[in-house]
Amino acid sequence: MTAEILTIGDELIIGQVVNTNQAYIAEQLNLINIRVARMTSVGDVMDVILEAFRTAWSAHDVVIVTGGLGPTHDDITKKAVCAFFDSDLVSNDAVRRHIQELWKPRNMPWTPSSEEQTMVPRKAELVENPVGTAAGFLFRDGAKRFIVLPGVPYEMKEMIDRSVIPHLAPLAGGMAIRHRTLRTTGIAESMLAERLGDIDTLLQGGSLAFLPAPTGVRLRITVLDRDPETAEQRVREIEERIRARAEKFIYGIEREELEDVIGRILSERHLTIAVAESCTGGMILHKLTNVSGSSAYVERGVVAYSNRSKTELLGVPDELIRVHGAVSGEVAQAMAAGIRRVAGTDIGLSTTGIAGPTGGTEEKPVGLVWVGYADAAASISVKMQFGGSRGIIKERASQAALELVRRRILSIAVDLP
Amino acid sequence: MTAEILTIGDELIIGQVVNTNQAYIAEQLNLINIRVARMTSVGDVMDVILEAFRTAWSAHDVVIVTGGLGPTHDDITKKAVCAFFDSDLVSNDAVRRHIQELWKPRNMPWTPSSEEQTMVPRKAELVENPVGTAAGFLFRDGAKRFIVLPGVPYEMKEMIDRSVIPHLAPLAGGMAIRHRTLRTTGIAESMLAERLGDIDTLLQGGSLAFLPAPTGVRLRITVLDRDPETAEQRVREIEERIRARAEKFIYGIEREELEDVIGRILSERHLTIAVAESCTGGMILHKLTNVSGSSAYVERGVVAYSNRSKTELLGVPDELIRVHGAVSGEVAQAMAAGIRRVAGTDIGLSTTGIAGPTGGTEEKPVGLVWVGYADAAASISVKMQFGGSRGIIKERASQAALELVRRRILSIAVDLP
Repeated sequence: MTAEILTIGDELIIGQVVNTNQAYIAEQLNLINIRVARMTSVGDVMDVILEAFRTAWSAHDVVIVTGGLGPTHDDITKKAVCAFFDSDLVSNDAVRRHIQELWKPRNMPWTPSSEEQTMVPRKAELVENPVGTAAGFLFRDGAKRFIVLPGVPYEMKEMIDRSVIPHLAPLAGGMAIRHRTLRTTGIAESMLAERLGDIDTLLQGGSLAFLPAPTGVRLRITVLDRDPETAEQRVREIEERIRARAEKFIYGIEREELEDVIGRILSERHLTIAVAESCTGGMILHKLTNVSGSSAYVERGVVAYSNRSKTELLGVPDELIRVHGAVSGEVAQAMAAGIRRVAGTDIGLSTTGIAGPTGGTEEKPVGLVWVGYADAAASISVKMQFGGSRGIIKERASQAALELVRRRILSIAVDLP
Repeated sequence: MTAEILTIGDELIIGQVVNTNQAYIAEQLNLINIRVARMTSVGDVMDVILEAFRTAWSAHDVVIVTGGLGPTHDDITKKAVCAFFDSDLVSNDAVRRHIQELWKPRNMPWTPSSEEQTMVPRKAELVENPVGTAAGFLFRDGAKRFIVLPGVPYEMKEMIDRSVIPHLAPLAGGMAIRHRTLRTTGIAESMLAERLGDIDTLLQGGSLAFLPAPTGVRLRITVLDRDPETAEQRVREIEERIRARAEKFIYGIEREELEDVIGRILSERHLTIAVAESCTGGMILHKLTNVSGSSAYVERGVVAYSNRSKTELLGVPDELIRVHGAVSGEVAQAMAAGIRRVAGTDIGLSTTGIAGPTGGTEEKPVGLVWVGYADAAASISVKMQFGGSRGIIKERASQAALELVRRRILSIAVDLP
């Protein structure tokens, strides 16, 4: 069973917004064994939309369309769908009640655009939108399905999860496909490839993709097999062979972020952490606190940009900053030990560096970052040099600092990055 | 002149990664008047890639392909390009020297995959990759161009900016297209549409797109005209009419983030800020410090998750937390005033709330956030209620807190969110 995902909107075609909907839908379809053959984006132009409908609907079993269902004038997908399936629009009472219900607590007035939102194609089945005003539609032709959803990501996701996937899953069958993603950090793609060695020996019929990002390289294993359990087993075997060669660089699996892994490790060991950030400017704390339940182990954090705040909040001696400079291993170490002491936590973590684009010198260039780590046993600092924009340097430094925590707690040798 | 952007990679088709390349390329082409008609993504499958090449190359003047040029075995785009243009691969000395140059400071060994990276299609012109090892290629047929770039985003961007756009710009001509994006926050899409009133009166032949996101709605004005100056002028007129109706919600233009705008306002007025975050967990500081030069006005910040840290770092009285609870207007106000006092800044900003998904009660549900603001004149707090996931609540609360700063400094009435 194959599918095409068709995303509609001028904002996509002119590059105003990044298309996150495609990836989400593709992933969900893939999990229920529907192979996405193609993903297409077109603008809000009637002829182009209709042509894309024709191409997709003639070639695939499932077509999922998102975008252009909103209340504003530039949204023409509903009209295009009506033209394509030769349907007219009728006002739907269930949709009307739903919108009234949604707006009641917010005291929103009923407007012409609210009225417009109640109109749905007569020939379609409704796909409920529990979190927004734009309803979705479903057309069927035998086992084929043409599904239209709003483009607002969190609305689309709710509808995919609650309605679309449960509807399509029973229709899909055949080969079982199994994936596993191993997330690495602190090693370049080519070095990782060399370390894994001969690829055929490693994979034995499976496949492996290298997915590099500023925070590390993800390795995605894929196995296809008639039998789901065999596919599962072969994925596990490939994973074991990879782990045998690169275990220490693998911090997590699937969608796990390093902060999720650290959260789990800290929780299990009843450890607490406090963070003193300079060049990363709050990003480490932001990442750590993205994890639900992080208030149990993140006692506090400070963003100590100024020298004065390093002294006042963390007790870093003036003298140390004067002699070594704010960007130095000595200061990183003193910041980590300082935040650990004032917060009374098990672990103190710190960063100090030059995120750029200005402020670099010959001796201390943009991208130079010292990470400090303190626990009951010792305080250490590690020097790193990153490339890229301010945002990428902040991201890489944050990831490297978190990886230092993981390695110290798990007693893995530190040779970052 | 029309273009198709073709992105290749299994990771796209199974939804493992979000396709940011498409949007970037589309935006750059659009600026030089090349209209992107379609964007397509396919997996690493030879037949499917070749079919996509044929469709795109027969329909459009410019085809830009990204992805699948890396050193690992799953990258087959180079083979597909050779098959499509009936070319073989030859080792290129310039590419070899470039890779050696790149790897010298990093002490990287020369491996078989390095050798593989020196191979380029004999019939193609080289597109240099100044920041990575995978070279790009260009094929021409009259005025038509077929351009192949690596998929690593920052390499691709460098090559688009330095080589591709300068090459294509002289080939593109015709109608001038001008855009302007106005960024709003604190108002829903439908309310904004009502406020703007009759769309034809507003636009007079131009077009307007509403682009909603958790942090606010962007309004994108587009005007096409033979004469670039007329197009420019008509965009300005539409902008003025929109501003006359919704000025106070507009915080910036184009790619400006609210933190950029606040940075500019603070710098111009020589004001400093310190932030005490609870439920936003460092995200406000992360946003503020994404701005280059922010060390001049961000004196410090604290993430005060625990009650103890609120008391110790900010001097919030125990009593206040006991009587009103940590999530209360009183505590938000005391946090803002406290961080302002200890940091000695002009402005203190704070958040306290329930980011979820756990920790909500009937009286204080998930998504309830109090934002506190203190300056020399007064300290205030504003109550807000957000929906969405933990991440979205953090993001909305951060944006609303920053917007409160903008409105207070510019003396705009506060009626958030």
